[in-house]
Amino acid sequence: MKKLNHIIESQQFDKELLEYIFSLADSMKSDHSQHQIKGKILATLFYEPSTRTRLSFESAMLQLGGNVLSTESAKEFSSFSKGESLEDTIKVTSGYADIIALRHFDIGAAKRAALVSDKPIINAGDGAGQHPTQALLDLYTIQNHFKSINDMTICLVGDLRYGRTVRSLCYLLGRFYKPRILFVAPKICEMAEDIRQFLTKNGVHWEKMDFETAIEEADCIYMTRIQKERFLDMGRYSQAINKFKIDNSILPTIKPGAIVLHPLPRESEIHPEVDDDPRMIYFEQAQNGVWIRMAIIHLLLSSSN
Amino acid sequence: MKKLNHIIESQQFDKELLEYIFSLADSMKSDHSQHQIKGKILATLFYEPSTRTRLSFESAMLQLGGNVLSTESAKEFSSFSKGESLEDTIKVTSGYADIIALRHFDIGAAKRAALVSDKPIINAGDGAGQHPTQALLDLYTIQNHFKSINDMTICLVGDLRYGRTVRSLCYLLGRFYKPRILFVAPKICEMAEDIRQFLTKNGVHWEKMDFETAIEEADCIYMTRIQKERFLDMGRYSQAINKFKIDNSILPTIKPGAIVLHPLPRESEIHPEVDDDPRMIYFEQAQNGVWIRMAIIHLLLSSSN
Amino acid sequence: MKKLNHIIESQQFDKELLEYIFSLADSMKSDHSQHQIKGKILATLFYEPSTRTRLSFESAMLQLGGNVLSTESAKEFSSFSKGESLEDTIKVTSGYADIIALRHFDIGAAKRAALVSDKPIINAGDGAGQHPTQALLDLYTIQNHFKSINDMTICLVGDLRYGRTVRSLCYLLGRFYKPRILFVAPKICEMAEDIRQFLTKNGVHWEKMDFETAIEEADCIYMTRIQKERFLDMGRYSQAINKFKIDNSILPTIKPGAIVLHPLPRESEIHPEVDDDPRMIYFEQAQNGVWIRMAIIHLLLSSSN
Repeated sequence: MKKLNHIIESQQFDKELLEYIFSLADSMKSDHSQHQIKGKILATLFYEPSTRTRLSFESAMLQLGGNVLSTESAKEFSSFSKGESLEDTIKVTSGYADIIALRHFDIGAAKRAALVSDKPIINAGDGAGQHPTQALLDLYTIQNHFKSINDMTICLVGDLRYGRTVRSLCYLLGRFYKPRILFVAPKICEMAEDIRQFLTKNGVHWEKMDFETAIEEADCIYMTRIQKERFLDMGRYSQAINKFKIDNSILPTIKPGAIVLHPLPRESEIHPEVDDDPRMIYFEQAQNGVWIRMAIIHLLLSSSN
Repeated sequence: MKKLNHIIESQQFDKELLEYIFSLADSMKSDHSQHQIKGKILATLFYEPSTRTRLSFESAMLQLGGNVLSTESAKEFSSFSKGESLEDTIKVTSGYADIIALRHFDIGAAKRAALVSDKPIINAGDGAGQHPTQALLDLYTIQNHFKSINDMTICLVGDLRYGRTVRSLCYLLGRFYKPRILFVAPKICEMAEDIRQFLTKNGVHWEKMDFETAIEEADCIYMTRIQKERFLDMGRYSQAINKFKIDNSILPTIKPGAIVLHPLPRESEIHPEVDDDPRMIYFEQAQNGVWIRMAIIHLLLSSSN
Repeated sequence: MKKLNHIIESQQFDKELLEYIFSLADSMKSDHSQHQIKGKILATLFYEPSTRTRLSFESAMLQLGGNVLSTESAKEFSSFSKGESLEDTIKVTSGYADIIALRHFDIGAAKRAALVSDKPIINAGDGAGQHPTQALLDLYTIQNHFKSINDMTICLVGDLRYGRTVRSLCYLLGRFYKPRILFVAPKICEMAEDIRQFLTKNGVHWEKMDFETAIEEADCIYMTRIQKERFLDMGRYSQAINKFKIDNSILPTIKPGAIVLHPLPRESEIHPEVDDDPRMIYFEQAQNGVWIRMAIIHLLLSSSN
């Protein structure tokens, strides 16, 4: 297995590495007392606030027995506001910590950081770019429920055009597995051409479908939030959020063995009244983020020794 | 003793539990090396900033050998600002931490959180509602100085109408002890009818009194801040804060064995010139908050195992 | 060696203490496993944000095996915004932590804090006043590269009038060493009279010099940021920042064995294109801040036992 220095983008994973990370995550979940990295320090360097992601990384580090240097928000970043470059901040922070989780508003920020850092960088989201640990935890969650992803029908619902998560997931699915993929989206935020071509080139069957039919056929339904800002016409927005929505009335049409995912936070696209249905596994999915991040941190710190 | 899942409101304590918590707090103060809960994680989830309370909880957890996930302010809460419900945030956070201290601006928020959380919730203040650990530390501080609360005269001064602390204190005093209670307050923020009726029903003698007389009779003087916002007439406000005030000139009229408490922060109601008087124990009271919170966290984590 | 209770200002160091701190910092750098202070708590109490300094202190504490209570910004400080005095905040915080690093916007704040605290206070910058750990790390960095500071020529460039760092450095250099000092600054921010007189009285040779000549003669070049706000005339400002600037074109004129320092963050006064030149040691200098702060924290906590 090739040496892993940083986690920057989904493209850097090969199947061997994915499987290794997933098995490490399994082992984190069952008993992480053997994977302690006492004395190591993670810095969460967040140029835009994302409390959920930050806490997930920090919980992972603490459960590994390590420590955390935490920054909530770039607005507090006095050096940054004094015009310091990302590169300088990274060089200084890598003198304070053993590993850095970076959240930034610019595409490519994590790659730039990795170029100047002598400590491992984890991309915790770079603008409209990548968020590779989210893609990993999504895939990990699906794989935990199905023996063969190849034989599945996976339905992606909501903002497919701008949603970082569904784009990354399609990338990993297309590269390493061959499921059937159904796209369900309002016209204004349909899956972009690049991903569709990528899937076709990789021999993955995909098709656009209406919500009701897709829901009935899917083994995995991946819901995402539809963002108001995408719509010029508020009537269309209301139509969209009323259409692509899981509530009690929809439950009987979902397959018995299916699973429903959501990267969270959700708005009205999944009604809380369905939370107790065992097919709704979005909170399990969020929890999986901790095991995946423990695996990633552990892997990077082992590699860098 | 009944199993303790969450700490939500003063009403949930019975006398046996109170005494158990106080004895546990004593033991935290004298030697907490035997009460370590290594590897456990406390999340401080503060939807409104309260640095003092947050640090008190975090210090308690760290002294127990545990770790902390910290959020300073709801404004940073990106998920929250994206419209996530408190319930969803709690469900996700309970996947990251072993226990959650929640501060929220809405009455009843802690109760709602407890309903969906599989980890213990501690109410660290819910709007104008409850702040049970403050009530516990107040009572603990009084009890540390007097053998029998029943025989005491306790004088409450300041904003009695809206003050969460004095209301909760009255509740616990009325339910479990029978001291004599003196109310000293400007007309506009006198103790509300519900608490007065509650005390009467429980056979507790209470009366309104002027500041000078009350100060002379009290064994315990509980001062609180009078808030400008309550007053329409600024002249009345100035009158009030000049009247209910402990400074050097007042000291001789306070009983030799009396104690003076304040939940802090204070403004002009206690002049710093009296701080060295041994009867002024508000900083001891603040410190007691750490022992009480250590006891509470330890108790909840033991119960949940 | 005299007992050390607090670190407030550069004036409190004598040469014996400086050398002891530096040797302790050396030992922190090479192997700090023998200097662990498990279970101790550092509170970083920052009334103005300074992420870099805060993280440096927190990293130091974590590497010593201790724990951290962290406050990012005074704006969150509810008690403070309710009008609480610094003294009260310190008294309460000293009940939560074993040692406090205080950053404040008022000159003299750390001294006031030390007067009421029964736990060690470290001044992490008090307005235009002092920032003693920065002065220590600067001196430590210079001493690591030169056997005898007495024989050196040290050139200070930039905002010498208002720069807290260069003023403190001059103080320590003048008191304990006798290097030759060159001042290079725009007219509007030349080194103030008090420091110049202090140096003269202590027999330190100093002179004003133009940038080009000074750069050629210096063994140590200490660059600082020139702040726009000092200038009324923006033309003059542009002139200044274009003149006092290290880039590739300047490199050949710097002595082979010289070192270039900068307290960071930098703006245009040092171009990133020179970062790989081994004489550019500002990132090493930032890293030294951690060893120095570990030494300081360890020293204070040992003294206070």
